[in-house]
Amino acid sequence: MNLTEAEWLAMKPADFRSKVRQGQWSGPNALKVCQGYALANLAIVPEKYAFEFMLFCKRNPRPCPVLDVTDPGDPHPRSVAPEADLKTDIPKYRVFRDGKLIDEPVNISAYWRDDLVAFLLGCSISFDWALEAANIKYRLLGDYFTDIPCVPAGHFRGRMAVSGRAFASAQAAIRAVQISSRYPAFHGPPVHIGDEKAIGIKDLDKPDAYAPPWPVEPKKPEEVTMFWGCGITPQAVALEAKLPLMITHWPGHMFVTDMMVEELAGI
Amino acid sequence: MNLTEAEWLAMKPADFRSKVRQGQWSGPNALKVCQGYALANLAIVPEKYAFEFMLFCKRNPRPCPVLDVTDPGDPHPRSVAPEADLKTDIPKYRVFRDGKLIDEPVNISAYWRDDLVAFLLGCSISFDWALEAANIKYRLLGDYFTDIPCVPAGHFRGRMAVSGRAFASAQAAIRAVQISSRYPAFHGPPVHIGDEKAIGIKDLDKPDAYAPPWPVEPKKPEEVTMFWGCGITPQAVALEAKLPLMITHWPGHMFVTDMMVEELAGI
Repeated sequence: MNLTEAEWLAMKPADFRSKVRQGQWSGPNALKVCQGYALANLAIVPEKYAFEFMLFCKRNPRPCPVLDVTDPGDPHPRSVAPEADLKTDIPKYRVFRDGKLIDEPVNISAYWRDDLVAFLLGCSISFDWALEAANIKYRLLGDYFTDIPCVPAGHFRGRMAVSGRAFASAQAAIRAVQISSRYPAFHGPPVHIGDEKAIGIKDLDKPDAYAPPWPVEPKKPEEVTMFWGCGITPQAVALEAKLPLMITHWPGHMFVTDMMVEELAGI
Repeated sequence: MNLTEAEWLAMKPADFRSKVRQGQWSGPNALKVCQGYALANLAIVPEKYAFEFMLFCKRNPRPCPVLDVTDPGDPHPRSVAPEADLKTDIPKYRVFRDGKLIDEPVNISAYWRDDLVAFLLGCSISFDWALEAANIKYRLLGDYFTDIPCVPAGHFRGRMAVSGRAFASAQAAIRAVQISSRYPAFHGPPVHIGDEKAIGIKDLDKPDAYAPPWPVEPKKPEEVTMFWGCGITPQAVALEAKLPLMITHWPGHMFVTDMMVEELAGI
């Protein structure tokens, strides 16, 4: 069964998750499937650490906007996709013990436990649908670590990661501030405009973490760069805390919710 | 020392809290002190219940917008008023054991424990400053219990409480939807417009909980009523759960934060 790009984009989330479950999609899905639907990053932690992790997210809402939190042991995200199963419906996972990567499975049923709590965090790729719908001219640069300290909570502390975008003009950047501000569930407005060195990014051409699957071109003089809080922040912070068990999605392989981005707009 | 109404309104939050600590203010403070500053409702629960309570708030953001959550045992709300002490800086408290009221002190130092977690929840009176600043004509009616079910979390379940307001015209009501939507930290947009019976309120003239200290007039035909999620919801739900210990502010006697309402506007 070969589907066209347009067919993957037009697909409903439940159908996409069903294909993931059947092993028919295991690659990156940013901007490739279920156009207009909200994407989420995943962080699963034991209940013992769930309150502190939720506190950390609450205190750092730009990098860590919480979309849904499951009851301990419940793999179904009741608010954003009640029929989905977080053990099987994400294209690819990462499993960490004591902060060390031990597995990269396409299904985490073998690791599931009654005390696990799943956090779904809004992914900024979601508002890229809104930027595209508004015909904003820009390039996605990738994800970087900054020297902006997060507000700590218990075991969790660290620096903020950001996603970078280069806008074709000041006007496009201004419009993007307006548009992204409507989506606090997907990181809201940018955390920085302009010089990346002011927030500790050494080389714009070398993203620290996830980079889009196309070559990063050097910034052009007329472009305006902006940076948004990024969902790899809570994962990095939780890894640094060396939890006995933690499970995340594989970067770029996000969970597709049943919610349209517009349903979750703040205003 | 007699201060005028204008002097109480012009006072900075730190000065007001100092006067509260010194016993110079123990009455209701809605719209009477520190004009333009954000007010918060208080709910203190043992750490054992903190994750479930925070989950409940997350799942019911209209009645339960969380402004700040303290670390266990820490009485200082680091995000919204780091110098304040939640044990002493609120005009009046209520202390409950197993869901029963046991004390109504002006200071809770005797009840404080190392495992207590304080939740500050945005109070809708905060956006009344914004409605007043926009010259909206309306009357505050009081707080009511509805038959709208909250999304449960662990021990916490129950019905939503709302605050009611009667607007002088449809135009005033429409503008109030726009303005309140800017403040998700203070309950955001209304949860209902119009017929109160549709959400289970039997008698608009008889608020179930807190009522303003002036007589409630019957609704006039040209008025439009609207209802916002109300911060007594999480208190009522936590009491129903019969926690071994729970401390709240006394209704109408709110905590005054250092944050201006505009600092916490969503957009």
